Amino acid sequence: MKIVMKPGAAQAQIEKVIEVIRNNNLNPHVTDEGGPVVIGAVGDGYGVPRETFTDLPGVESVVDISQPYHLASRPFHPRDSVFDLGAGCVGGEEIIVIAGPCSVESRSQILETAQAVREAGATALRGGVFKPRTSPYSFQGLGEEGLEYMAEARAQTGMPIVSEIMSQVQLDLMVKYVDVLQIGARNMQNFNLLRAVGETRTTVLLKRGLSATVEELLMSAEYILAGGNQRIMLCERGIRTFETATRNTTDINAIPVLKGLTHLPVLLDPSHSTGEADYVMPVARAAIAAGADGIIVEVHPDPAHARSDGKQSLKPEAFAKLVQQVKAIAEVIGRRVAA
Amino acid sequence: MKIVMKPGAAQAQIEKVIEVIRNNNLNPHVTDEGGPVVIGAVGDGYGVPRETFTDLPGVESVVDISQPYHLASRPFHPRDSVFDLGAGCVGGEEIIVIAGPCSVESRSQILETAQAVREAGATALRGGVFKPRTSPYSFQGLGEEGLEYMAEARAQTGMPIVSEIMSQVQLDLMVKYVDVLQIGARNMQNFNLLRAVGETRTTVLLKRGLSATVEELLMSAEYILAGGNQRIMLCERGIRTFETATRNTTDINAIPVLKGLTHLPVLLDPSHSTGEADYVMPVARAAIAAGADGIIVEVHPDPAHARSDGKQSLKPEAFAKLVQQVKAIAEVIGRRVAA
Amino acid sequence: MKIVMKPGAAQAQIEKVIEVIRNNNLNPHVTDEGGPVVIGAVGDGYGVPRETFTDLPGVESVVDISQPYHLASRPFHPRDSVFDLGAGCVGGEEIIVIAGPCSVESRSQILETAQAVREAGATALRGGVFKPRTSPYSFQGLGEEGLEYMAEARAQTGMPIVSEIMSQVQLDLMVKYVDVLQIGARNMQNFNLLRAVGETRTTVLLKRGLSATVEELLMSAEYILAGGNQRIMLCERGIRTFETATRNTTDINAIPVLKGLTHLPVLLDPSHSTGEADYVMPVARAAIAAGADGIIVEVHPDPAHARSDGKQSLKPEAFAKLVQQVKAIAEVIGRRVAA
Amino acid sequence: MKIVMKPGAAQAQIEKVIEVIRNNNLNPHVTDEGGPVVIGAVGDGYGVPRETFTDLPGVESVVDISQPYHLASRPFHPRDSVFDLGAGCVGGEEIIVIAGPCSVESRSQILETAQAVREAGATALRGGVFKPRTSPYSFQGLGEEGLEYMAEARAQTGMPIVSEIMSQVQLDLMVKYVDVLQIGARNMQNFNLLRAVGETRTTVLLKRGLSATVEELLMSAEYILAGGNQRIMLCERGIRTFETATRNTTDINAIPVLKGLTHLPVLLDPSHSTGEADYVMPVARAAIAAGADGIIVEVHPDPAHARSDGKQSLKPEAFAKLVQQVKAIAEVIGRRVAA
Repeated sequence: MKIVMKPGAAQAQIEKVIEVIRNNNLNPHVTDEGGPVVIGAVGDGYGVPRETFTDLPGVESVVDISQPYHLASRPFHPRDSVFDLGAGCVGGEEIIVIAGPCSVESRSQILETAQAVREAGATALRGGVFKPRTSPYSFQGLGEEGLEYMAEARAQTGMPIVSEIMSQVQLDLMVKYVDVLQIGARNMQNFNLLRAVGETRTTVLLKRGLSATVEELLMSAEYILAGGNQRIMLCERGIRTFETATRNTTDINAIPVLKGLTHLPVLLDPSHSTGEADYVMPVARAAIAAGADGIIVEVHPDPAHARSDGKQSLKPEAFAKLVQQVKAIAEVIGRRVAA
Repeated sequence: MKIVMKPGAAQAQIEKVIEVIRNNNLNPHVTDEGGPVVIGAVGDGYGVPRETFTDLPGVESVVDISQPYHLASRPFHPRDSVFDLGAGCVGGEEIIVIAGPCSVESRSQILETAQAVREAGATALRGGVFKPRTSPYSFQGLGEEGLEYMAEARAQTGMPIVSEIMSQVQLDLMVKYVDVLQIGARNMQNFNLLRAVGETRTTVLLKRGLSATVEELLMSAEYILAGGNQRIMLCERGIRTFETATRNTTDINAIPVLKGLTHLPVLLDPSHSTGEADYVMPVARAAIAAGADGIIVEVHPDPAHARSDGKQSLKPEAFAKLVQQVKAIAEVIGRRVAA
Repeated sequence: MKIVMKPGAAQAQIEKVIEVIRNNNLNPHVTDEGGPVVIGAVGDGYGVPRETFTDLPGVESVVDISQPYHLASRPFHPRDSVFDLGAGCVGGEEIIVIAGPCSVESRSQILETAQAVREAGATALRGGVFKPRTSPYSFQGLGEEGLEYMAEARAQTGMPIVSEIMSQVQLDLMVKYVDVLQIGARNMQNFNLLRAVGETRTTVLLKRGLSATVEELLMSAEYILAGGNQRIMLCERGIRTFETATRNTTDINAIPVLKGLTHLPVLLDPSHSTGEADYVMPVARAAIAAGADGIIVEVHPDPAHARSDGKQSLKPEAFAKLVQQVKAIAEVIGRRVAA
Repeated sequence: MKIVMKPGAAQAQIEKVIEVIRNNNLNPHVTDEGGPVVIGAVGDGYGVPRETFTDLPGVESVVDISQPYHLASRPFHPRDSVFDLGAGCVGGEEIIVIAGPCSVESRSQILETAQAVREAGATALRGGVFKPRTSPYSFQGLGEEGLEYMAEARAQTGMPIVSEIMSQVQLDLMVKYVDVLQIGARNMQNFNLLRAVGETRTTVLLKRGLSATVEELLMSAEYILAGGNQRIMLCERGIRTFETATRNTTDINAIPVLKGLTHLPVLLDPSHSTGEADYVMPVARAAIAAGADGIIVEVHPDPAHARSDGKQSLKPEAFAKLVQQVKAIAEVIGRRVAA
């Protein structure tokens, strides 16, 4: 439920509403942005009748929230969520471009790549140090050593760094190093992990699961929001379908669908959603044309010898061309790439 | 197999190769575009050894074609297929925009819509007169009466007309009226129908089946090409996946994938691929950004009262805006919308 | 709508109801099985108010039919549809086993196979003469010559014969020869074909489309029922999913789901639904255990040299073993294989 | 690679092979079951040439393992893995039936259910205490309190208990209480969790992910096996497809496919794979008929008031009937339900 207060409602009236919400085992979320104060009553309180609130002094109206997610929804938060990412901003007019290798493989590899993507116009640097690999025998990432290299790359280039967290036991370590905690597709419904990152105030890049619906993605975001962390970027990264011509199927529809349903920024990852370097550029252009707030792209100085995802990684030169094209499309629709 | 002749091979040598191809129960397809003459030997002749041709006089080399489709493939026909559509051209620099109602409902409805989409910048007019409806009790189309109205709309606006054919028994009637025979998703593997339109020289708009792979779409095009009809436009119209937030899932990857595998023009239908008027514009922009050669869009003067597909139909005003945006994106990538 | 007449309603009252149904552009379907007479009013008559019928003399009640299909639904026809197939019966206690090669390849091949499956305990013989092949260059079937061989096999073994029809232009020919018209997965929504077989009174085996929902399958059956042909067997033959370990995914759930929604008999085709001979036996057993009214199985005397579907075809010996196991499962659940 | 030793190879020769395996950063797995000793060399050692081993004394032959999983594969371990579960055995002739509520809701609920399923013939008791819920506002389980009730139910009935683990931080607690650690569909690729349970010697019930291929399921089992835990039961629980008539699509094919590819026992969960109580019985029968080694079924004394999954839960009476039918099918195929 959403309790809308009368214009000029007294602070004591607001506090009374909050108290009643708490008494019903719900969590209050106050929005006060100049207009009437709105108080969300969030939780498993479907048995609580509307009359609990309608008769309280200062209450204008009580609105049901029909979606199974509340905090993530447009009705709850009609305006776009906008927050900073390094020198840029995400969710507003600016478009962000996150780039870097699938895995951090060595100090020189990540420093070289960081330099290259920075020059090409990237906003932030990605690089995995804990790798969710289908096989237990594949390269599993450099761990903390990799985080140190990432931090060095940030120091050299000024770009914020993005890296994937696979388990809540890695949380303290990750928060110490990274600017953005990435939650990968396979962990989109790892609810313990979602709750853990919800307790932090570090920005989260939440990727859609391989076969998750748009609604389930928003429910997972709700877990993080319920913990109080509002800095969430959603990311479409391709879904699993019957088509085998590409690694995944880019659900481009998800961009306008999500932009309609939620206030959170929405990115697209054309590297994973296609799985093939040749298709990354056209799909990156499509993402921006469809209204995405940014893209995340795999770039490697030597894709043929990458320890993971080489097939879908761009060389720095190709990435530089991609940024040029993304900029051109962005301009046409009244946006610009974050410097 | 593809037999490449030596430069300056004699006509008699070419004819000898053709004769040997026919003797092996294969069909010869000669390509003579200035460079060396190339003769495709197409059919179920996998048992025929290469040596059958390598030793013939004038033969430079014999190339295997590895895909299960031949005539539709890039290796067989490396350059883009370009052909006229009304005053415009499809498959080259120009982008075509086909627009109109799902169904022709009345004379005034189609004439009014034709006028509106013409003014907004459409290249061609669509309108169904035989409707493939899931329910036997739904409106099944106006039949020949509808074709007469379509022809009248063509006469008034100068636009070529596109309409769906559902069965080979409708072929003579349809060919008499329309400029483009549309084969719908449900008939993509109606092989009798494919063969029938392959015998004509009328342009075909072949839509991808609901759960057809990109390869199967090309195999279906091969049926038409094998009959000698080379005027085929392919059309991505959304595939069926687990996601229910939209009617179908737009497989945007299919655009660059198809452009790589085949020389045939590739269109996208954002109306069916999303199923919701609100998502048509962003996905139409994405289509062009991804490299599509055109789009086909449902437009209705009064969507709320349309007899079919009202939910996904644009009003003429919204369509006019869409054309403006598509033009802007086209320009950025060095193309233009056909007048 | 379904108009339930009062017990002992006069014939004139029934005729009046029928007249009013027709005046509203609907089709009357009278059910008179000893209890109260029920008259279905079927068609696109959603605008017709209930009061049109409630006030007519002799009318007990008017019931809405909520599904988009009417004649195929349990509410419209609560009891199982049972009809004869050769010496056996389908839809009742008996389980039918249809067996034979994917394609009729030669006179000796089909006669030999017919003999073998007959001895093993099959109820009916299958064999394709018009083949829907993905490639235009693959074997397309023997056509009428194949039908003659099938007829000869019937004469020799006494088994009814089943063969696929691909287009309404083949209807006269097919009806002349076969006992069961099979409509393949690719033609499940070839509505012209559905309407054509609906006009006949020949039994139809309607296969579920590759990506058709259970509801869409029932809508396609409705097309045939609306034409007056009530001898329809539905067939689950596997759906297309992301899993590539098998050719298709057997949707075993569809068996109880269909048995609940419709009165029509439901078969399963474990050959196509798995695509691999090794999996046919366990999935055939599962079909019967789940409540299917029969199975259709591909059998070939020499699978390694079959012109189509060899990989999924059983040798006669393996098929004989399968029939034994199916019989054992059938007995456990109180059914028996039709002799 | 798999190194097959000569009959009667000396212990020193075996140890030398093991040493060379370790020197190449691979893990040795020795199989000595009476026949020739076989030593698996498992890990990311694709660069290691066969000659490394072929020339060592006592080596008969070196066999490549082509699948991406080794320890889970039939070639590595041709005989069925059989291990005890309570008084019964899984993976051999016996069929196991695990039953109980989705969630442990109260002491009386779980004790009552345990008694009822025990009387009906269940082998083991299931009950969730940590619940992976799509919504953060849904009931999340009783935690340790629930485990205590489960332990009490075990003490009363003698049945082993099965409960889901959601995170490696719950491992010590869970291992203290339960006989079988269930890993749910959403955690099938939670690699940290897989590795953690691989370090224990507690039996694991590993459920297939919503959109995981059979191969990926085996790769996840490989993570557990690589840690040394060989007591793994795999479980098909329905996959996500386009069909919405049921909650999931039971992939019945997966039963024979898995039985062919791996030596591990394979179960089926008809409650989740259908999502509807009415379909549980027929699909349970189908599972056994297809060759499953067991089933896991949700049973609740009062499904209408269950805090989770009520729609798919059976009442104890219906479950008792199910066990009778499963027993009858088991007998027909030469198996029996574990007492």
